[in-house]
Amino acid sequence: MTNPTPRGTRIAHLGIAVESLDAILPFYRDILGMPETPLDDADGARIKAVAAGESLVELLQPEKSDSPIGKFLAKRGPGIHHICFAVDDLDGMLARCKAHGIQLIDETPRIGAEGKRIAFLHPKSTAGVLVELSEY
Amino acid sequence: MTNPTPRGTRIAHLGIAVESLDAILPFYRDILGMPETPLDDADGARIKAVAAGESLVELLQPEKSDSPIGKFLAKRGPGIHHICFAVDDLDGMLARCKAHGIQLIDETPRIGAEGKRIAFLHPKSTAGVLVELSEY
Repeated sequence: MTNPTPRGTRIAHLGIAVESLDAILPFYRDILGMPETPLDDADGARIKAVAAGESLVELLQPEKSDSPIGKFLAKRGPGIHHICFAVDDLDGMLARCKAHGIQLIDETPRIGAEGKRIAFLHPKSTAGVLVELSEY
Repeated sequence: MTNPTPRGTRIAHLGIAVESLDAILPFYRDILGMPETPLDDADGARIKAVAAGESLVELLQPEKSDSPIGKFLAKRGPGIHHICFAVDDLDGMLARCKAHGIQLIDETPRIGAEGKRIAFLHPKSTAGVLVELSEY
């Protein structure tokens, strides 16, 4: 695979914790008019995704209460769970984060949804926001 | 003004409530490498914005504790405050939201930052997410 032209950091997706996909999907898909995009379920959550320009909005409904999204819902209620930024060079970015004292949840990239290489940063280091980095 | 070609609904910006711009701006600008974009302060908050592809990340630090962001911080702590979706036809979209029973905070568009026409939807109708719509 050849490397694409560097595009810079951009929003890959927003992950939103929801209690009911059936209740909220029509708002994004039918009212706001975002095209539904197939995405596999992951991490103990049922997922529906819609395209918002170059980004996705991922709606995450927990299948079990002890899943990450289930715990988030129980603690904070429905709302935005994380932002995922697409970066051109994930290994380089993780090294740069570490060098600047950002606490990493994933010290090395792991394989996430759709086979993409991803890593999470700890919200302690990012002013309370759970940030995922994903490589395109 | 001529209407641009319809582009569909996309993420205009994410608004993130922060306790200290000085503490978090370097993460987005210098580590993640997002170019800083000038933006006026608004709604009792100091604002710094960085570009993430076609979207902005807006960091919002309250100037007063009784401002919308000040109250959010006191209640929930730092984190993502709202999503703003850019739409091609704001009046049409608000009418469509209303017809589908979505509760509006702004019944008619008002002028927001940078002179753009905006309106907020009530999080009660959008599964806990504060959604702003903005016209490009």
